[in-house]
Amino acid sequence: MSTTTSPPRPTPHEPDAPEERTASSAPDAPAAPALRGPRAEALREALDGDRHALRERLRRELDADWFAPRLHTDDEAHRVHTLDGLRRLAALGHQRLGFDARHGGHDDIDGSVVVYEMLGLGDLSLMVKAGVQWGLFGGAVQALGTTRHHEELLRALMDLEVLGCFAMTEVGHGSDVQGLRTTATYDPSTEEFVVHTPDADAEKTYIGNAARDGHLAVVFAQLETAGERHGVHALLVPLRDRDGSVVPGVRITDNGHKAGLNGVDNGRIAFDHVRVPRTALLDRFADVAGDGTYSSDIESSAARFFTTIGALVKGRITIGGAAATATKVALVIALRRAEERAQFRRPDGEEVVLLDYLAHQRRLLPALARTYALSFAQSELVAGLAGTTAATRLPEHEQRRLEVHAAGLKAATTWHATTTIQACREACGGAGYMAESRLPGLRADTDVFTTFEGDNTVLLQLVAKGLLAAYKDRVEDLDTLGLARTVVSGLFDRARHVLPQPGREPDVTDRAQQLALLVDRERHVVEGLARRVRHARSGDGDAFEATNAAQPHMLAAARAHLDRVQLEAFVTGIERCEDAAAAAVLEQVCDLFALSLLEQEKAWFLEHGRMSGATARQLTRLVDEACGALRPHARELVDAFGVPGRLLQVAGEDA
Amino acid sequence: MSTTTSPPRPTPHEPDAPEERTASSAPDAPAAPALRGPRAEALREALDGDRHALRERLRRELDADWFAPRLHTDDEAHRVHTLDGLRRLAALGHQRLGFDARHGGHDDIDGSVVVYEMLGLGDLSLMVKAGVQWGLFGGAVQALGTTRHHEELLRALMDLEVLGCFAMTEVGHGSDVQGLRTTATYDPSTEEFVVHTPDADAEKTYIGNAARDGHLAVVFAQLETAGERHGVHALLVPLRDRDGSVVPGVRITDNGHKAGLNGVDNGRIAFDHVRVPRTALLDRFADVAGDGTYSSDIESSAARFFTTIGALVKGRITIGGAAATATKVALVIALRRAEERAQFRRPDGEEVVLLDYLAHQRRLLPALARTYALSFAQSELVAGLAGTTAATRLPEHEQRRLEVHAAGLKAATTWHATTTIQACREACGGAGYMAESRLPGLRADTDVFTTFEGDNTVLLQLVAKGLLAAYKDRVEDLDTLGLARTVVSGLFDRARHVLPQPGREPDVTDRAQQLALLVDRERHVVEGLARRVRHARSGDGDAFEATNAAQPHMLAAARAHLDRVQLEAFVTGIERCEDAAAAAVLEQVCDLFALSLLEQEKAWFLEHGRMSGATARQLTRLVDEACGALRPHARELVDAFGVPGRLLQVAGEDA
Repeated sequence: MSTTTSPPRPTPHEPDAPEERTASSAPDAPAAPALRGPRAEALREALDGDRHALRERLRRELDADWFAPRLHTDDEAHRVHTLDGLRRLAALGHQRLGFDARHGGHDDIDGSVVVYEMLGLGDLSLMVKAGVQWGLFGGAVQALGTTRHHEELLRALMDLEVLGCFAMTEVGHGSDVQGLRTTATYDPSTEEFVVHTPDADAEKTYIGNAARDGHLAVVFAQLETAGERHGVHALLVPLRDRDGSVVPGVRITDNGHKAGLNGVDNGRIAFDHVRVPRTALLDRFADVAGDGTYSSDIESSAARFFTTIGALVKGRITIGGAAATATKVALVIALRRAEERAQFRRPDGEEVVLLDYLAHQRRLLPALARTYALSFAQSELVAGLAGTTAATRLPEHEQRRLEVHAAGLKAATTWHATTTIQACREACGGAGYMAESRLPGLRADTDVFTTFEGDNTVLLQLVAKGLLAAYKDRVEDLDTLGLARTVVSGLFDRARHVLPQPGREPDVTDRAQQLALLVDRERHVVEGLARRVRHARSGDGDAFEATNAAQPHMLAAARAHLDRVQLEAFVTGIERCEDAAAAAVLEQVCDLFALSLLEQEKAWFLEHGRMSGATARQLTRLVDEACGALRPHARELVDAFGVPGRLLQVAGEDA
Repeated sequence: MSTTTSPPRPTPHEPDAPEERTASSAPDAPAAPALRGPRAEALREALDGDRHALRERLRRELDADWFAPRLHTDDEAHRVHTLDGLRRLAALGHQRLGFDARHGGHDDIDGSVVVYEMLGLGDLSLMVKAGVQWGLFGGAVQALGTTRHHEELLRALMDLEVLGCFAMTEVGHGSDVQGLRTTATYDPSTEEFVVHTPDADAEKTYIGNAARDGHLAVVFAQLETAGERHGVHALLVPLRDRDGSVVPGVRITDNGHKAGLNGVDNGRIAFDHVRVPRTALLDRFADVAGDGTYSSDIESSAARFFTTIGALVKGRITIGGAAATATKVALVIALRRAEERAQFRRPDGEEVVLLDYLAHQRRLLPALARTYALSFAQSELVAGLAGTTAATRLPEHEQRRLEVHAAGLKAATTWHATTTIQACREACGGAGYMAESRLPGLRADTDVFTTFEGDNTVLLQLVAKGLLAAYKDRVEDLDTLGLARTVVSGLFDRARHVLPQPGREPDVTDRAQQLALLVDRERHVVEGLARRVRHARSGDGDAFEATNAAQPHMLAAARAHLDRVQLEAFVTGIERCEDAAAAAVLEQVCDLFALSLLEQEKAWFLEHGRMSGATARQLTRLVDEACGALRPHARELVDAFGVPGRLLQVAGEDA
């Protein structure tokens, strides 16, 4: 996460003009939900960061009947409603932000991610449908295709003249994309690729837009030409005619009812020797000449694969953003109820509201604090995209860093969504089980986020590999400043100076020492992991067994890293907050976040001699106190999320 | 949890004759799923405990098309299907187990709980519908009514001639049952009670059987006679005529779509001065004479309330049992998939199945081990009911102990269901998100179990109060043998002798020392809580604030207690297993359970000086090893659950 100030953003296509910065300046749109005084607004600005104006604009535009979540018990009706929502979204024009200005786009990459994040306010089927169409399908055409594809498709897909699929996952291969088994064999006699599904295990599955609406798919397949395999490549393959009938050679089956996201038409696709022209290959990183000669600027097949996949990193970032937004909606619902719902009485006979109970505070407030932390971290990640365009290819090391951060935050944010929305459901009791409360929908819809766009457990291992690589670079450079240097030099230096001396007890209420504890843990875990991996490689035992034994350590290293990243992002977020009163509240939220994080992870600090038993026991009391300190601010802290009131309940049944 | 051997059970009404003990002896029914050799069968017998024969019989009877879960996207069709299932269940006759033999029942209380547990194999809407009809409604008539109610209603409700509701929860009052606001005012001029809902906040809500099917409700209301209030009592109030139309004065609205359990017709009920005869009062514990004179054998209103509520404890036990069964189904699904699904390759090119990855083992195997522990604890709890009849009223202290155990295990089992089914869903990736996998249904249906039949957080506080009372008794009796004496004397004595000496490091692989660590923790936490509560009561500060501040300690005490109870139940279960090979596997499962529990709770042992950092770090490796040791047994360990194959998937869409 970069803490350097983002460069001024180019604004030629910025749809939110400066004069629209606040909701109040748009008299024709309903105002965002009432704030309790100016502090909640300052909190909102702090959370929103660089793209506050765009977020405010979206809050107004999405505060609309068509966007309000409805109850759908009929999947077909839900799909129709979702497609209708997609057309309304297209009319707003925000999908253009993520595309090349030469083809009708706005080259505003961070803005495009913010749009998906804000779509997390509503029915997540619409967010996912939009993500499939413009993020995955459109994003693949943009990132993996070349001018001919862009000219033919970008405007059409932005305007929904062409609906598309992103056909990567197969029945037998999900996370292991390199192991996909669909084939694309080049036939020089007709200058065509033959796309084929060898068996049921190689059928594409869970593909959004496939079961009902998609015309065209970006299909990932093993490319073979002149008898040689070149690994996974992406090609455009038609699925349906303009009239909606499936084309010959393609067989599509409906994935049927799902836990959630039933407004999205996921399906399974099989290809029976489907022929597509040579130009169907998305040829940015590799091409096949008419005679079948394969060429690529990237020499190794592995490097080509990772470059291809890396170009799709934005999808992962949008999932994290939308998950964070859905979490915020759930917290608004649960905390408002906790402030209103009485249960049992004080000895003096007065009924007590739920949020006055410490146990209830402990269920919701640390989750609220972590939501703030993750929100700051996400904003920072997105801000890192500012200044890039749809055509930008980042330098290798920056790209790798972005991928690691995107993977880690996606995992952290989506797991946080799952546990927090669940906690909100339970905190609302039976009311939280009723569909009208929105909580069941939020819970079920976000559930799959932890395993799609990269399974979280696999993503954490990617983070760990990134940390190991950074560690290796550091050791090789004899750079003693430490692992985190390139990412957080200023903060790290500060943390380094306050690391408790051996035998000295840390002051767990001091922000710099909190950070130092997390930095120290991360370094220690990564160093231990590096030793373990080195040892495994040098041993003459089973290489798989050795790597496998290190898996829990890899996950621990990634988690330690992500905890540190979140606290740093929080600190940076507060530093950037110009409103003193809001910053003071943010400090209290950060206190609770840091203390509850240390409480949760105290076993590590204890067993590694970083903290005494007395300090660890003290953490319990400190978290209790931090909950109590935040309780009076709970309402303004959720008001700051700016969730329009009509999005806090289910609007009604679908017609 | 009693470890004394259960007395021989009376078997006059036992529907499972001894010769039916194993599935193979019933050639007309499809066999329970194939077991891998005799050990899985011995494991199943060990898990099933005293009621193995009944469980086997139910496995055969429920291995049927009508019981197989289907996909329902239409709630009305789902309700129709569920009611049909209820009629098929009634035809099997097992509902009679829980009722008085004088009125057509079988007086087999533990057997009746086992039936609900086994219903957890199928669509949980049916289990809940059955639980509402026979457990809650029927159970209230049985336990709170007297002969006139039994004669009029028990046969009719067993045979589904009368469908009933259990109308306790109100919009404004859920956990705080004493605070209910529906009134039942006695009118001596007509010898009637007037049942009334004063405002929307006092409407009954989430009431099963209310929205569509119920004829009669047991309504909990504040009883008032001769101008005096006597607290919450239960009365029978008609809801619908025999033709199904709602009776005058009653207003019922549908709670609508829910996160799950949509085969159950939950509704909201309001009463507008509805008159019912004096005999509608379920008068086992209190009566109102014709002239309005109130009488009760139980003097204090609070004691009467708790006696009334306590009589309903079996409902709570069945929820725990059904949640445990649903968890088992999910584990079978996820572990079978983990054994079959390959992902990535070894360096030698061979694909690796998911369950060979340590990270995957860690997701599922400790949860499997805890499922075994909870299963033994549940069987023990149920066995404690053996020999009781529908009319049995336990001695006060036994009743209180039963209530505490039931509350604690219900909380532990239902939370375990929520987290484990979720882990299974994630472990199955996208496939686990598809309705056909059963996991979404299991997840969504069991979700509400953590907050109905007693909110888990409230239940844990009940457990803590029970522990405090036991502690107080002990201190007052100068009984130095310790808290757990009456419950687990043998085990506790053993544990006491192996408590590590100060400065001596515990051997965390030794079962007796594992137990000693948990006993020691429980005692320490309860003693600390007792000091804190005493201090709070003696202080002159705000009594509410002092109690509130102790809430997290109450939850911690209850959790420490439940952890110990589970390990003890596991040890007892192994001791009772007569098959040496099965007992050896169970020891390995118990190893993983105990080690992963200590790993999870290691912060407490570290911060209280019970364990060194080196020992705590060693736990990580020991859990890894225990996972590896169990991996070859994973399949037989889930086969032992005896889930019929057709219940492992969704049978198809409803017609």
